Amino acid sequence: MTPLFGGIEAGGTKFNCIIASGPDKILAEARFSTTTPAETIGQVIEFLKQNGPIAAVGIACFGPLDLNPASPTFGYITSTPKPGWASTDIRGRIQHELSLPVGIDTDVNAAAVAEGTWGACQGLSNFVYFTIGTGVGGGAVVNGRPLHGLVHPEMGHMGLPHNRELDPFVGSCPFHEDCFEGLAAGPAINKRWGQPAETLPFEHPAWDLEATYIAHAMKSVICTLSPERIVLGGGVMQQPHIFPLIRHKTQAFLNGYVQSPTVLEHIADYIVPPGLGTHSGMLGALALAQQQYR
Amino acid sequence: MTPLFGGIEAGGTKFNCIIASGPDKILAEARFSTTTPAETIGQVIEFLKQNGPIAAVGIACFGPLDLNPASPTFGYITSTPKPGWASTDIRGRIQHELSLPVGIDTDVNAAAVAEGTWGACQGLSNFVYFTIGTGVGGGAVVNGRPLHGLVHPEMGHMGLPHNRELDPFVGSCPFHEDCFEGLAAGPAINKRWGQPAETLPFEHPAWDLEATYIAHAMKSVICTLSPERIVLGGGVMQQPHIFPLIRHKTQAFLNGYVQSPTVLEHIADYIVPPGLGTHSGMLGALALAQQQYR
Repeated sequence: MTPLFGGIEAGGTKFNCIIASGPDKILAEARFSTTTPAETIGQVIEFLKQNGPIAAVGIACFGPLDLNPASPTFGYITSTPKPGWASTDIRGRIQHELSLPVGIDTDVNAAAVAEGTWGACQGLSNFVYFTIGTGVGGGAVVNGRPLHGLVHPEMGHMGLPHNRELDPFVGSCPFHEDCFEGLAAGPAINKRWGQPAETLPFEHPAWDLEATYIAHAMKSVICTLSPERIVLGGGVMQQPHIFPLIRHKTQAFLNGYVQSPTVLEHIADYIVPPGLGTHSGMLGALALAQQQYR
Repeated sequence: MTPLFGGIEAGGTKFNCIIASGPDKILAEARFSTTTPAETIGQVIEFLKQNGPIAAVGIACFGPLDLNPASPTFGYITSTPKPGWASTDIRGRIQHELSLPVGIDTDVNAAAVAEGTWGACQGLSNFVYFTIGTGVGGGAVVNGRPLHGLVHPEMGHMGLPHNRELDPFVGSCPFHEDCFEGLAAGPAINKRWGQPAETLPFEHPAWDLEATYIAHAMKSVICTLSPERIVLGGGVMQQPHIFPLIRHKTQAFLNGYVQSPTVLEHIADYIVPPGLGTHSGMLGALALAQQQYR
């Protein structure tokens, strides 16, 4: 019999939890508001206990996280500005209460793993998953494994070319002003144009500018990580008309320099929406649990 | 007895070749101008034949390269603008003539491997090597292996923030104008200030601006690849006074966002010169040969 797993998509606003044996076999679901670590993690543990027995748990977690298994604070949420959540031993508490293997990674790395396991990146060893919504984050699988390195990527905070004559908006990132997130996340769109992204019609110039910044980020990621595919998810990417713009601009910015047919001729299969829709993060947690179990 | 290896550092201006059993045991050296593939590769093969027998060959090669072992053009120099060298089967020709295992990678990936094997990145699994000179290139080791992905990184061509009020220079890259290479390579310095980098005194504002662009690139690489260490080599980096400027600006641009003591407190051990001096590329070729032999 296929064992059951617990999956936790831990976000700054809410925690989504599932009990599942596979991506199409979800037996129970729950959603809890992100209040205090004690309350929210307590609710999660209660849910997992009541709907088990489960074989392992995966946590796709907002960060920054300590993902170094040799560190005394492995599995902690570290320096988040979210009140009460800095230095939270989320992995340790769940492992202690349930006495089960617990896998943890960033929400975006987990989403990348899910897209590689069941979604748009099956069969590939090098790919990137971005979420562009309230914030911007990027996760990567490189040589078949999630990329951690020193800490873990923070792709939303790379610097981008910013033409202040065309776009005088200073940027909305409290750390870097006009980094990728500061120029292109939902709050940046809202502040720049005075209305939320989802209320801006297709023909509004906001979308061309948005595609420009996303394409600059694509170019940087292609020049740096050389992924075999890039998945763009998140709330802002729910506007499907923006994909062709991003692809066209990415090719224009690369200007033929990366001589790969994948980029030059097949870019519609290169920069793609998530194969798992809005479930990449949640199913990423499931994939982490399964990996931890194996 | 330790076997002998052939190492070829194949550059756009010259090919440096060695016969060696280890980084401190170089038995023969030769240098050939990069003229035509037939002539230059012919000279290399002659040198390797006369100074053998050798057990394997490594090529640290200028690019772009096809590094996909499943490709019919694996080991070719692909689309270089260097006259006569596009679509050159450099690996195949050497393997055919010598009937030996031949390893090949980009010059910068090879240099990264050498720094990991004998240099500044020993014991690490995730690190980046940049050369900043006539051009700008970056290679990376991720999860213990050189990063290839779709093609291989082209880190010199990532876009950077470029404040045209402070620096109206349009950039010198024929593909992208003001990418990293177009703003910060030797020819960019020369064109912007009207004199070669090596003739500019320490106190010249060129160096502060140069450090600014390099630090922007460091931030992008840290946000994307999350390396455990970054090595900066190449002709421009022969000015040791620029390292403290780059480190300081990298911290300033990150603005505390990446909460790692390595970045926050020990940046002098994080952004470092090559442990192998100017020999990273050459010894990278040796490391590739040894890997191919094993």
